[in-house]
Amino acid sequence: MAQLIDGKAVAARVRAEVQADVERFKAARGLVPGLAVVRVGEDPASKIYVTGKKKAAEEVGFRSWEHHLREDISQEALLVRVRQLNEDPSVHGILVQLPLPKHIDAERIISAVSPEKDVDGFHPVNAGLLSLGQPGLRPCTPLGAMRLLEEAGCAPAGKRAVVVGRSNIVGKPMALMLLQADATVTVCHRKSDLPREVAQADILVVAVGVPELIQGEWLKPGAVVIDVGMNRKPDGKLVGDVAFQAASQRASAITPVPGGVGPMTIAMLMRNTLIAASGGV
Amino acid sequence: MAQLIDGKAVAARVRAEVQADVERFKAARGLVPGLAVVRVGEDPASKIYVTGKKKAAEEVGFRSWEHHLREDISQEALLVRVRQLNEDPSVHGILVQLPLPKHIDAERIISAVSPEKDVDGFHPVNAGLLSLGQPGLRPCTPLGAMRLLEEAGCAPAGKRAVVVGRSNIVGKPMALMLLQADATVTVCHRKSDLPREVAQADILVVAVGVPELIQGEWLKPGAVVIDVGMNRKPDGKLVGDVAFQAASQRASAITPVPGGVGPMTIAMLMRNTLIAASGGV
Repeated sequence: MAQLIDGKAVAARVRAEVQADVERFKAARGLVPGLAVVRVGEDPASKIYVTGKKKAAEEVGFRSWEHHLREDISQEALLVRVRQLNEDPSVHGILVQLPLPKHIDAERIISAVSPEKDVDGFHPVNAGLLSLGQPGLRPCTPLGAMRLLEEAGCAPAGKRAVVVGRSNIVGKPMALMLLQADATVTVCHRKSDLPREVAQADILVVAVGVPELIQGEWLKPGAVVIDVGMNRKPDGKLVGDVAFQAASQRASAITPVPGGVGPMTIAMLMRNTLIAASGGV
Repeated sequence: MAQLIDGKAVAARVRAEVQADVERFKAARGLVPGLAVVRVGEDPASKIYVTGKKKAAEEVGFRSWEHHLREDISQEALLVRVRQLNEDPSVHGILVQLPLPKHIDAERIISAVSPEKDVDGFHPVNAGLLSLGQPGLRPCTPLGAMRLLEEAGCAPAGKRAVVVGRSNIVGKPMALMLLQADATVTVCHRKSDLPREVAQADILVVAVGVPELIQGEWLKPGAVVIDVGMNRKPDGKLVGDVAFQAASQRASAITPVPGGVGPMTIAMLMRNTLIAASGGV
């Protein structure tokens, strides 16, 4: 049976580390890190996420603000709000909760956030710094997945890592982080022969949003599996992108869903906000 | 025997296309695209490259300037020069020839070039836009390699592409372009099991700078091979990173060295400069 990678426990540890660092930071700088979260409209999942982020921010000792804006806000008015936050010296991190309403150009809004305050790591400058291997703010979910690999005692160097999914938020930055950690990295997607690719993965990271797409029988015995998926089945049960039961028979370590990568995202967001408040990486 | 992918011929065609587009652009806009090349010091290879770029720029109908600066120029003075070019409306493309002297922070200089004029595609913003799949100026060598694949009738979608080398100039942007073209992409480096990875490549791109590192016998029969390497052997002969003779027995198509990817880089630089003059992609 595979070792369970307990993301909840690791996330709690990261948050405790950040909390301790924040105390030192406040004492040394006489300054409280501030995180501003912008939420537009009434998406119920966004509301839950934002509440969780605000709560976590307060627990580690940040100031935090939620800017809740009307669904029908104009793009220009949203840009003005982002620019105000860019200029506000008490705000060190800015997060615009996605998705945004359809009449808003999300890329435009993300690009308007100052790269130094872009604690989501989604700004083109930060995406570029990651690709170039230069210091910058990194996306939180792949950062969290890297930390889970470390906690599982899995060093990527020289291993074959397979990333299923190529989103800007998880798949691509994950692949770049694994590459920087000296793994041989393959990125797969809907045109890939998944059983063949998965069978060669010493490290498998899946982020596609398709319930139990990856069959346990496909895995290389001993693989370390990071399942970023979080899907609700018709019966209400939460499952990942990997068929957990069968996978945990073959993997050496695997993240559960829920309780794996999920809690890490917020923890790494706290870490990023402290980095931004400290004046960069 | 593999089909030879004639980069010299394709590059000539691209340059002729750009030349025709430049004529139309001048007629429509009453404006001549301008390319400024900055060269620091006396590196003999840089001198040859810059001369070639200037000549190509004049042939397609651009204005071009070479700013040749002393080896001992300070970083601050070089930054000032770059900023002057950023502000000069007659300059649409700026290229700082690498390598720079050791006392200069090359990353800092590259980041100082306005992203809109960064015809090398090396600025973090452009690297980020590539990673995010958004329009931007792309690095010339991988752009040229993509064009060669197209000319060879090789569509990457659904194929396994293997990139050997993970530089910021070739390997990483190449992998991202192949991924965007729907290939399943593996990136390899010194920690990879190269024979194993190469054997699975429908498309193989090699950019490591090690003469004939890739043995022909490793190739999957029918592979399409793009060899970005350009190495001089002790006897003065130019060879690529792939052992050409043996490789051309197994590949379905292969670039020669010289006369493969090399000429494409300058051709795509011309294309990028016209794109920059046109006000972006």
